[in-house]
Amino acid sequence: MANTETLERFFSYVDQNQDHYVTRLREAVAIPSVSSDADHREDVYRMGDWLIGLFKQLNISYEAAEPGTHVLDGKTLKLPPILLGTYGNDPNKKTILVYGHYDVQPALIEDGWRSDPWKLTEDSTGRLVGRGSSDDKGPIIGWLNAIEAHQKAGIEFPVNLKICFEGMEENESEGLDDLILREANRYFKGVDAVCISDNYWLGVTKPCLTYGLRGISYFKVTVSGPGRDLHSGVFGGTVYEPMTDLIILFSKLVTSDGKILIPGINDDVAELTDEEKETYKAIEFKIQDLQSAIESQTNLFDNETQTLQARWRYPSLSIHGIEGAFSAPGVKTVLPCKVSGKFSIRSVPNMDPDKVTACVEKYLKEEFAKLGSKNKLNIESLHGAKAWVSSPNHWNFVAAAKAVEKVFKCKPDLTREGGSIPVTLTFQDALNKNVLLLPMGRGDDGAHSTNEKLDRSNYIQGIKLLGTYLHEVAAVKST
Amino acid sequence: MANTETLERFFSYVDQNQDHYVTRLREAVAIPSVSSDADHREDVYRMGDWLIGLFKQLNISYEAAEPGTHVLDGKTLKLPPILLGTYGNDPNKKTILVYGHYDVQPALIEDGWRSDPWKLTEDSTGRLVGRGSSDDKGPIIGWLNAIEAHQKAGIEFPVNLKICFEGMEENESEGLDDLILREANRYFKGVDAVCISDNYWLGVTKPCLTYGLRGISYFKVTVSGPGRDLHSGVFGGTVYEPMTDLIILFSKLVTSDGKILIPGINDDVAELTDEEKETYKAIEFKIQDLQSAIESQTNLFDNETQTLQARWRYPSLSIHGIEGAFSAPGVKTVLPCKVSGKFSIRSVPNMDPDKVTACVEKYLKEEFAKLGSKNKLNIESLHGAKAWVSSPNHWNFVAAAKAVEKVFKCKPDLTREGGSIPVTLTFQDALNKNVLLLPMGRGDDGAHSTNEKLDRSNYIQGIKLLGTYLHEVAAVKST
Repeated sequence: MANTETLERFFSYVDQNQDHYVTRLREAVAIPSVSSDADHREDVYRMGDWLIGLFKQLNISYEAAEPGTHVLDGKTLKLPPILLGTYGNDPNKKTILVYGHYDVQPALIEDGWRSDPWKLTEDSTGRLVGRGSSDDKGPIIGWLNAIEAHQKAGIEFPVNLKICFEGMEENESEGLDDLILREANRYFKGVDAVCISDNYWLGVTKPCLTYGLRGISYFKVTVSGPGRDLHSGVFGGTVYEPMTDLIILFSKLVTSDGKILIPGINDDVAELTDEEKETYKAIEFKIQDLQSAIESQTNLFDNETQTLQARWRYPSLSIHGIEGAFSAPGVKTVLPCKVSGKFSIRSVPNMDPDKVTACVEKYLKEEFAKLGSKNKLNIESLHGAKAWVSSPNHWNFVAAAKAVEKVFKCKPDLTREGGSIPVTLTFQDALNKNVLLLPMGRGDDGAHSTNEKLDRSNYIQGIKLLGTYLHEVAAVKST
Repeated sequence: MANTETLERFFSYVDQNQDHYVTRLREAVAIPSVSSDADHREDVYRMGDWLIGLFKQLNISYEAAEPGTHVLDGKTLKLPPILLGTYGNDPNKKTILVYGHYDVQPALIEDGWRSDPWKLTEDSTGRLVGRGSSDDKGPIIGWLNAIEAHQKAGIEFPVNLKICFEGMEENESEGLDDLILREANRYFKGVDAVCISDNYWLGVTKPCLTYGLRGISYFKVTVSGPGRDLHSGVFGGTVYEPMTDLIILFSKLVTSDGKILIPGINDDVAELTDEEKETYKAIEFKIQDLQSAIESQTNLFDNETQTLQARWRYPSLSIHGIEGAFSAPGVKTVLPCKVSGKFSIRSVPNMDPDKVTACVEKYLKEEFAKLGSKNKLNIESLHGAKAWVSSPNHWNFVAAAKAVEKVFKCKPDLTREGGSIPVTLTFQDALNKNVLLLPMGRGDDGAHSTNEKLDRSNYIQGIKLLGTYLHEVAAVKST
């Protein structure tokens, strides 16, 4: 247990320096480090340099790993550096690896921003509006602010910190996985646990710890027949139409109310334990939250727990679209000769991507054979990522939960997420250590959307949370 | 019956002037009268002027109707004139209206032409290759060549001819329907029958008369739910997905082997009479012809008669594509909030487009209700055209059949087509007269494709055919 007096001193210092932290975030937001736009690549480098400046100021030793080049918008560009920082190397302390990213999504005021996205603007309710405020500049600067507060307040830093800040997260994290695998036994050696602050509370009132993410298996199913697109007037009724076959096949994947019809897919889904069941009771979530997010009342369930379980711990199947058919507005009487339908299955523990692929292939081939069509079927597995789940009972989570209680005076929601954050599983697999997702922002921050914000209270309490978490980690008895 | 000696003289004159006709066609092909390209609009006008020159030379009185303007490629352009010609007005003769078009499809040598598309080139097998040779400059000049041959050979022209040549056929015939309706009781008054030479033989060896075209009912079916596109990871499994519902609905439209599943659609299909059944026996058509056209062996039937009947006299349903879903190459995990599927039904006598629409709407609404989905369904009928069928026993067809026998020494195939040529029905409905489709070119002429050609023999025999047809019309006893 961390010393109460120490924490009080830390909290007090952070509270007194709020405006300094906001100014620092404003400086960062002013650098439009958009990684997916070649015209902004210089800004991404500049953002890296800005962080290096802070590293130097805070006596964080660092390496700027250069992952190489890539082609974007027809130009060959140097990838932004992956900043590897080290703060402290006391063999008697635990070592925590923290990950975040310093690049951001694009933003144009014309998209509907109420203020310049590159100028952090605080409104009357304390919302700090600006691109990157919440995703992910607030959290990464949060770690650095916590270090600074310890230095200035004269408090010993409780752990050794390893830092991994990348500049390509919004552009597929190019180069990161390779680096993690390469550095697992060098730079990342000795790490005891990982903490990622790059997601959000489930809602707007209660902090959460995130311990699971669904995986994904993405399929492309192609049905082909004629050698060229045909005129439906001349040939309709005389040939097997690939589009008809594909539509019939896809109608057998999932029911309107979301039940996956592919035999075997649900077999390996981890049983819902009483312990897990218990965790849903306390979670701050209302069906209205879902309805406002989807901007409709077309929710499948009227029950909160069912909804959360469907999102987090059961597989789902979505049909994304069809390539090769007529997709423009207007009227066209084409009979497409080759169509590729795309769907994905969000997978959960203990589903195995290889088994998912095998089930999909077997089923679709059988169903296609039943049609008796002369067309050809081809099934491709385009992308597969395993689901991730961590134990919320691990000391890493326990420390974070205690930190939430100390800072927010409530127990955190234990959440999972429906999507995937691939680096999570990469860290877990490469380092074989527990990974914790510890979000700073709220569910309505609008990352990737217009008017992205981070509430001032979330930012300031977040700095306290990150620091307190490290103190709680230090207080854990050696395992 | 036309006088044999007269026809011999006509045939002999045509044969002796073959090269003159080819030269005339070459002049026409050299004018790139592409109606769908604003940069070629001047050429379309020029082609109209070229025809007016011929009208004057042949003493055909004419009006050049100006249908107004339209917008193309962002420019407001004058529509090409519709040339209305009159040749003869003897009250003791029948009056035949002939229709054709002087505009052409685009053509670029880079598309795969073996010679300059705007330079009529004759190969060693007598194929006259050039854009518009067969579609439709050969046929329209054919009528004028026939008039000239009568003048030069001193043969009395057997009928009064009304001519309607448009310059926008390859660009939706803008302005034509209005003109036909407006002129029905003025310019087109007194017409006894209509002949259109703007389609093709079924195959490559035997002439045909075409007496039917399928109609079309085109539908757009929209399923909508969420207010915005969603991330399938975050929301998959918790909402009713519009794409799932649309795919299930569309799977209920038609079977893989082409059976339409919408109740009522097949009810009004005209019975196959013994007389009609008889006509299929003589038709020159092999399954291999279909397979080479579709470039595959994915034909529904192995039987020629079944194939032709499926194309001509039974309805078919084709699914064209989906608007609003992910249709690009690659991977995207979108859950589309609003998707519009498009399909069309090719209709046949005696189907009524209004009843087709009613059946489709009733069925889809019922099937959608069965899903129990919270999404919304919207059905739009985008386009409807009635099927057309003419009696091949009408004197207009009998005259054409006799002409085929005299020129080609064989009975013509009696064919229908799977697609639609809207002007056919407009003429029939506006004038209430029999319409005959009398093709000049062969099934492999490649209209709308590269290396479009008209065989020299088809062109020359075609001129004889058009002229002989008019003599046979004149020989018909007044009805």
